[in-house]
Amino acid sequence: MSNVDLPKKYKAVVYDKPGSISTKIEELDMPEPGPGQVLINLSHSGVCHSDMGVMMNSWVILPAPTQPGQVGGHEGVGKIVKMGPGTENSAVKIGDRVGIKWMAGTCESCEACFAGADANCFNGKISGYYTPGTFQQYALGPANYVTPIPDALDSAAAAPMLCAGVTVYSALRKSGAESGNWVVILGAGGGLGHLAVQFSSKAIGHRVIGIDHSSKKDIVLESGAEHFIPIDGTDNIPETVKALTGGLGAHAVLVLTANNAAYATSAELLRFRGRVVCVGIPEGEAVAIKSALPQLMVAKELQIVGVAVGSRREAIETLDFAARGVVKTHFRTEKMDRLTGVFEDMFEGKLKGRVVLDLS
Amino acid sequence: MSNVDLPKKYKAVVYDKPGSISTKIEELDMPEPGPGQVLINLSHSGVCHSDMGVMMNSWVILPAPTQPGQVGGHEGVGKIVKMGPGTENSAVKIGDRVGIKWMAGTCESCEACFAGADANCFNGKISGYYTPGTFQQYALGPANYVTPIPDALDSAAAAPMLCAGVTVYSALRKSGAESGNWVVILGAGGGLGHLAVQFSSKAIGHRVIGIDHSSKKDIVLESGAEHFIPIDGTDNIPETVKALTGGLGAHAVLVLTANNAAYATSAELLRFRGRVVCVGIPEGEAVAIKSALPQLMVAKELQIVGVAVGSRREAIETLDFAARGVVKTHFRTEKMDRLTGVFEDMFEGKLKGRVVLDLS
Amino acid sequence: MSNVDLPKKYKAVVYDKPGSISTKIEELDMPEPGPGQVLINLSHSGVCHSDMGVMMNSWVILPAPTQPGQVGGHEGVGKIVKMGPGTENSAVKIGDRVGIKWMAGTCESCEACFAGADANCFNGKISGYYTPGTFQQYALGPANYVTPIPDALDSAAAAPMLCAGVTVYSALRKSGAESGNWVVILGAGGGLGHLAVQFSSKAIGHRVIGIDHSSKKDIVLESGAEHFIPIDGTDNIPETVKALTGGLGAHAVLVLTANNAAYATSAELLRFRGRVVCVGIPEGEAVAIKSALPQLMVAKELQIVGVAVGSRREAIETLDFAARGVVKTHFRTEKMDRLTGVFEDMFEGKLKGRVVLDLS
Amino acid sequence: MSNVDLPKKYKAVVYDKPGSISTKIEELDMPEPGPGQVLINLSHSGVCHSDMGVMMNSWVILPAPTQPGQVGGHEGVGKIVKMGPGTENSAVKIGDRVGIKWMAGTCESCEACFAGADANCFNGKISGYYTPGTFQQYALGPANYVTPIPDALDSAAAAPMLCAGVTVYSALRKSGAESGNWVVILGAGGGLGHLAVQFSSKAIGHRVIGIDHSSKKDIVLESGAEHFIPIDGTDNIPETVKALTGGLGAHAVLVLTANNAAYATSAELLRFRGRVVCVGIPEGEAVAIKSALPQLMVAKELQIVGVAVGSRREAIETLDFAARGVVKTHFRTEKMDRLTGVFEDMFEGKLKGRVVLDLS
Repeated sequence: MSNVDLPKKYKAVVYDKPGSISTKIEELDMPEPGPGQVLINLSHSGVCHSDMGVMMNSWVILPAPTQPGQVGGHEGVGKIVKMGPGTENSAVKIGDRVGIKWMAGTCESCEACFAGADANCFNGKISGYYTPGTFQQYALGPANYVTPIPDALDSAAAAPMLCAGVTVYSALRKSGAESGNWVVILGAGGGLGHLAVQFSSKAIGHRVIGIDHSSKKDIVLESGAEHFIPIDGTDNIPETVKALTGGLGAHAVLVLTANNAAYATSAELLRFRGRVVCVGIPEGEAVAIKSALPQLMVAKELQIVGVAVGSRREAIETLDFAARGVVKTHFRTEKMDRLTGVFEDMFEGKLKGRVVLDLS
Repeated sequence: MSNVDLPKKYKAVVYDKPGSISTKIEELDMPEPGPGQVLINLSHSGVCHSDMGVMMNSWVILPAPTQPGQVGGHEGVGKIVKMGPGTENSAVKIGDRVGIKWMAGTCESCEACFAGADANCFNGKISGYYTPGTFQQYALGPANYVTPIPDALDSAAAAPMLCAGVTVYSALRKSGAESGNWVVILGAGGGLGHLAVQFSSKAIGHRVIGIDHSSKKDIVLESGAEHFIPIDGTDNIPETVKALTGGLGAHAVLVLTANNAAYATSAELLRFRGRVVCVGIPEGEAVAIKSALPQLMVAKELQIVGVAVGSRREAIETLDFAARGVVKTHFRTEKMDRLTGVFEDMFEGKLKGRVVLDLS
Repeated sequence: MSNVDLPKKYKAVVYDKPGSISTKIEELDMPEPGPGQVLINLSHSGVCHSDMGVMMNSWVILPAPTQPGQVGGHEGVGKIVKMGPGTENSAVKIGDRVGIKWMAGTCESCEACFAGADANCFNGKISGYYTPGTFQQYALGPANYVTPIPDALDSAAAAPMLCAGVTVYSALRKSGAESGNWVVILGAGGGLGHLAVQFSSKAIGHRVIGIDHSSKKDIVLESGAEHFIPIDGTDNIPETVKALTGGLGAHAVLVLTANNAAYATSAELLRFRGRVVCVGIPEGEAVAIKSALPQLMVAKELQIVGVAVGSRREAIETLDFAARGVVKTHFRTEKMDRLTGVFEDMFEGKLKGRVVLDLS
Repeated sequence: MSNVDLPKKYKAVVYDKPGSISTKIEELDMPEPGPGQVLINLSHSGVCHSDMGVMMNSWVILPAPTQPGQVGGHEGVGKIVKMGPGTENSAVKIGDRVGIKWMAGTCESCEACFAGADANCFNGKISGYYTPGTFQQYALGPANYVTPIPDALDSAAAAPMLCAGVTVYSALRKSGAESGNWVVILGAGGGLGHLAVQFSSKAIGHRVIGIDHSSKKDIVLESGAEHFIPIDGTDNIPETVKALTGGLGAHAVLVLTANNAAYATSAELLRFRGRVVCVGIPEGEAVAIKSALPQLMVAKELQIVGVAVGSRREAIETLDFAARGVVKTHFRTEKMDRLTGVFEDMFEGKLKGRVVLDLS
């Protein structure tokens, strides 16, 4: 089905010492697409905070330690070069540019799949943990689940949309906030945050209040926030939010930080029937959402919802907004052999913007 | 507008020593309906746990202590006997049987009112606290807000529907659970609980699992629950619920108890995207909803919503189900002068079923 | 309650010969606000196509002919100068700037009111037909139903938002189309149309295709449409729409014209589960929506919905978008004595943009 | 993967002369499951009106004439006996009882699939037309799309649920009517109708008014309708419906007949914001829904929606209600060689209840 001469070997970056920050380039054997699969020649992969969690075994929700030799990554973009048996009628063909995202494949038979929440599939395979991920030049994916990349969108720019982009877009949709409503974004200046501010203000038409350290003021306002509140130097954030929103509070709060204190006060920023959307997962000892105490929940009929990641449909919508230039990621590209250094910077909090690996 | 000869004085039960369990019958002057108001000759009033909170000043969400002489009550039913100025075009007329509920009147101009959540009106007046309530023979109410009582429904049976009934009906609607879905009711054998089990199983067609003390088994199953789980004698309630629901957990959990421990485990009973509905307000030191920790919320995309009380529209729907005999309250009637005794029984937890005062 | 010295008489424009285009300025006695009412000193009133229908008795849905002496108008803005009995706790006070819209008052007790569709109240009073309207210097309105005008919005600019603005905004909300979805607007260059294009593209973030005569191209594109299709000079509009929308058709079609041919083909412009929103009411002999034939409805699971006018809540949201400058009406002001001429121009189709009467 | 010894040949009923009523039993070669497929040993298949349309080429929405040798049928139930490559991680295994329904397989990549409307897949394959159907002893199906049959449900009883059952269940869900709301069912005594009445009244808790010929009165009332209106002998059906529903009309109307006259008056039975759900497809010359005239649509804000068939998720819910005995089909079983006779009876309108072929 393919006329392309594929090499026998190709380069991949593997976690050679899981539990520590360490990666190594290895030569791997070219895989053969199985029933329903396609083989993709990846050109780019985003590097996400979650990859570091997998590499370092620091992420408690994963069921087992990562094994040495694991290929990480879950924001990959490339071209289909070979198709496995049973893919004749699929929606993609050789030469199509497609993406691999956090959820690498689904069962189509569980309640999450039935709910259109394919990214929460009970039997789903997480890319770069359950399957070899996208920090490599070739990867396999299900013909019916890889994500088509719009022509107008550059592969490097598409990569971070496949996880960071779709996660915040999905969270905003699940916030219930409509165009013209007030949305507070906690962690507005970070990797997820600057994208969330753009999607919220420019794609959906929310009125955005961004909250973050004062050093992030410029990127938050440039991303489209109507107001910025610095967490350093604001005595009473709930009162400040109320003053900006006509005395009532926001319609929704997105918690993008893994900061327990942010969660603890999130619900106090809300108006009647407002909604806290939990995205960032706190590390260390868990705390309760302070305002989630039943007394307050009942009096204001508040809602708290958790959001893990977006569906394939939301990924396609996310990429459409990016292809039309409505939202833009701040990123820089790095070569594959720089991955260990990128993780070191990320660990030390020195990383500015997203890094996309050039896999060529 | 009225041909009825009204007496100059009438009987009311007042809280004579707020802060303690004490009521006293007094003679009050007949009031005159103001602009937009109707005067109702009440025949019955339910006695609710919340009345005791108001009488005893034990309910922290009220802004000020209750004053001596306050007439309590918020589940009143009677006939309109006089109409005030500006009510010519209202939907009710003299002789109509109508009810007064928790929310005595609304502003029609706040976000809660706009959302159809009139019972949460930001400027609303709570019956029996902000206004003279329904433990009296005559009361005033807004012509456009009193609740019509269906012909087929007895006044005594209607009374408890106006607060207990509408609250659980509203909570069930806000649970998001559809016909055929699993709903767990915590506190299924109590005053709210036995009504919730009936509305859930018989009116909406949920599959109900009732949880309560083993002594409540019979009333819970008679009310329509498919399964009963005794809290005394069940080691692992989450596992028991999962086993009964095909391994996935319930679609929704209604927390009707004011029991902190019930809240603490509620979310563990849920399946993917399940919803905890908070109704009962815990007393004393507040605890967090244990399963509301952001980590768990995110992984399962759970939702937690607070519900205070139902709207006028929901009250009308509630009364319609009651008038058709789909749901039935367990109650007994008592004379006005028995109110102190009723509160004493309630305080000591000896009250079985609802009490309705006969105001004649 | 008021310190303002009100004149005994004031000026109003009345329909002196209903059934024809004729208006006359008369002096009327100053009215006294009744229970629950406020008296408003109007400064501006928009002139709407529906006013002409009332004046000329050409609008079949009205139950009885308009009487000589009727004051028309339903887009009025002014200041509260006096408050009637029973308004002490209302949300407005003397000096507040408020608006009167199509629905002058509601019963709060019908299914439409319960559904938050107050503008469809079964017992509602249409301004300028059932009640004296807004073509006068003073008018009465219910304290709890007049619409607050935001400080940042000029009274003349606010007037057309109270009917034209809220109608298209409501229709767009009822279209079910989300930000980023395709919306086709039939009659995109007209009085309703140019506002609909702005709300759709700028407030809600739809991708808009405007359809109208080629002479309207500029205003449609300036209003924010991504594409313009001239009805004169386009052979196959359904195919043209499909080509612009990735082969699938639009998510929603707004029919703002009273043109039967527009209705007849509207559903052919839609994708799977798309929705036709009917706003403009065809005159003369009615035709069926051609694509509403059950065969086609079923195959594509299409939806057709009718929309009459927006609610008070939607009016407030509409004014908020206008106050923030997101949408702008094209209008010019005229003196009261010019009203007959304005209607003549409207009748002859010579009116460009909206006219707002200056009532001072 | 299988230890079962499968025969080389098996029996199937084919359309030997498409365009006429004629079927013939043939011996076919046992097929081999391809990638992602399972082989099912079918024991039962329902016979549906749509099968006759395919056989007789009388159904205009199909793109090409049916070919001689086509195996029809789309309500098949049987056991998995063999699994193809790439099915290792699927949710089903050898020995599982599963069903094949109208939509035999989907692309998972179109807008319908993304919307959870898999049965409307743009690239879907209709069983018994695009693929060999269920009038045979063995059939292939996608491992991830066949429908699991609950243990408590007999195979013969399950078969009609896979098309007739799921279609009416889906239509009722899409009606927007809630428990306690009024639903009118046109064609309430037919094959779809008696199931719709049961699902509506017993599963979802609607209040049902069934309309059909007077001969169908008993089955309609036994199925759970609160009222029956005979079309023969009722002068004014809209007025009769209004009188039964408190003067307002029904919340939803399901049109299950292919009768143009039924469609023509359907919308007149509705209250404010009521919804017509179109299911039956009229044959012959199409007529418009009379009440879909824009004038009436707008005044009452009515909605009209088309419904083709239900999703896999809805099929699972449908089977769950059937397995719990909430709904029951009237059917009888017939041997494979009786199929021509069954179609003849169906054509002549003599068929009572559903027929299920015994394929053993």
